[in-house]
Amino acid sequence: MKDKKPSEWYSAVCEAAERIRGHALHTPVMTSSTLDAELGAEVFFKCENLQKIGAFKFRGAYNAIRKLPEDERKQGIITYSSGNHGQAVALVGRMLNTPTVVVMPDNAPETKKSATAGYGAKVVEYNAETESREEIATDLCRERNLTMIPPYDHPAIVAGQGTAAMELLEETGKLDMLLVPCGGGGLLSGSAIAAGAMSPECRIIGVEPELADDATRSFRTGELHRVSNPPTIADGTRTPSLGKITFPLVLEYVDDMQTVPEKAICDAVRFFYYRMKIVVEPSGALGLAALINGSVPGNGRIGVIISGGNIDGPTMSSILARKM
Amino acid sequence: MKDKKPSEWYSAVCEAAERIRGHALHTPVMTSSTLDAELGAEVFFKCENLQKIGAFKFRGAYNAIRKLPEDERKQGIITYSSGNHGQAVALVGRMLNTPTVVVMPDNAPETKKSATAGYGAKVVEYNAETESREEIATDLCRERNLTMIPPYDHPAIVAGQGTAAMELLEETGKLDMLLVPCGGGGLLSGSAIAAGAMSPECRIIGVEPELADDATRSFRTGELHRVSNPPTIADGTRTPSLGKITFPLVLEYVDDMQTVPEKAICDAVRFFYYRMKIVVEPSGALGLAALINGSVPGNGRIGVIISGGNIDGPTMSSILARKM
Repeated sequence: MKDKKPSEWYSAVCEAAERIRGHALHTPVMTSSTLDAELGAEVFFKCENLQKIGAFKFRGAYNAIRKLPEDERKQGIITYSSGNHGQAVALVGRMLNTPTVVVMPDNAPETKKSATAGYGAKVVEYNAETESREEIATDLCRERNLTMIPPYDHPAIVAGQGTAAMELLEETGKLDMLLVPCGGGGLLSGSAIAAGAMSPECRIIGVEPELADDATRSFRTGELHRVSNPPTIADGTRTPSLGKITFPLVLEYVDDMQTVPEKAICDAVRFFYYRMKIVVEPSGALGLAALINGSVPGNGRIGVIISGGNIDGPTMSSILARKM
Repeated sequence: MKDKKPSEWYSAVCEAAERIRGHALHTPVMTSSTLDAELGAEVFFKCENLQKIGAFKFRGAYNAIRKLPEDERKQGIITYSSGNHGQAVALVGRMLNTPTVVVMPDNAPETKKSATAGYGAKVVEYNAETESREEIATDLCRERNLTMIPPYDHPAIVAGQGTAAMELLEETGKLDMLLVPCGGGGLLSGSAIAAGAMSPECRIIGVEPELADDATRSFRTGELHRVSNPPTIADGTRTPSLGKITFPLVLEYVDDMQTVPEKAICDAVRFFYYRMKIVVEPSGALGLAALINGSVPGNGRIGVIISGGNIDGPTMSSILARKM
């Protein structure tokens, strides 16, 4: 077990919790007596699929944008993301009356472009084959004097994401283990900071798809590994690597990393659908997948963060159509 | 507005609430800021899709079976239902250590038979083309000295189903309108009894599919109308008619009935999936369908009972595949 003294990082999570109060939803914690009986454990699911925009990303985005000095915020903000973070920044921009630009690949699904534009953000498209989204966003930042709100590698984003685990632990009390999906590591490092301070004996485990195991390899070797557009169904974990800020935090605060096969991810999505009647995207189902797959011991008091529920109809249909 | 003085029926709902406490789940009430903004109303969803066995039916079944004298219960219970009520009776039978028989048509989906048998009930199959389930069940009742737990036309079933609306009103306070799905009328009459006593100025509206409008016609004419195996996607409302007990209760306690087209039902299932990230079966989506369709005025404080979430993969996939 790592030495997890409360740090200035934990103070930042506490401040974020104050900042988002009454703006982010205090999402419910759900349980399943069927699952508990099968495992012989007590499992507590923190339902960030029921958060605004359907994912935990709202927490970090609200914290980071609200924290900006007002004159800076008035100049406008920008981000690059075709996923949940882009929608979160767009919604917060609207809530705080802040001009918002979201840079998205021109081949992003029309539904995502229109959802982001629907929140009032300006969508700037780029050619994903020939252009770099970071460069486009950085150029726009300079030209228009905008502030960049990156998807995970930012202290206020990490602190904001940590508030979900904080709420979970406030409700459950101490836990033996906490399972957290890992993409860029913002949710994982934020959760580990919060749980490390609130329940020091709790083992904090990051979970990745086997097909996108860069963070697991980085964690084991201490050197940053990358993946390039991995073919996992868990699209929220297709980020190329942990970040400059999140990698050291994961090394410091996380106890272990585990990977799960695609089949276990789909089994978990189906369990949420059929047994718990909630819609969970594949990335959001990683924690339960680790339990179903036996990747982690299924006993004691276990917290699981469900990161999001944004799964389109065709993907859900293909998962439901597989053999139970 | 009808005169709704608290009656002995309301006392029965209060007793049922005591009886099921700690055995049925106290399901959450959910809201959607998107929907509220679109309608200009405050809508409160009572999520019985998150109830045990995925539907409100657990409430009535537990109340009716728990209320039996112990020697009668020990002899065993029987019901006929291929749907949620059958599973509810099977689960309660297991919880109360009571021998349970569920009569199901031989063409019922294998998943429903195995789910019911999985709760430890004995499944007795009959030929749906040539035999009557009521007769088979009645014969078995006599032969084996079992007690019949019918799906809706029974005072303890009605009282148990009323506890969902009671919990909703305890949480929300007074409402202007309450929308309740109507099949055999157990949930509707129970809800109307509870809401009539707790929020007398609340208009209680039963909602049916246009394709299965027997209760609406019965309500308007005062004479019992029937449908035979109506082709609605809302399978929970395919019951042939209101019952001997529920019809007079609906006439006495319900303020109005409305019907909705199949399209609105599917739109509502999709709204729950995409915007609220919960799995709701078509019958459970009738209340929201009435709001989306403009069948009822969308203003003020509105309660909606989501009756269940048992929708199989192929049906959900076909609904998600339709145009938004």
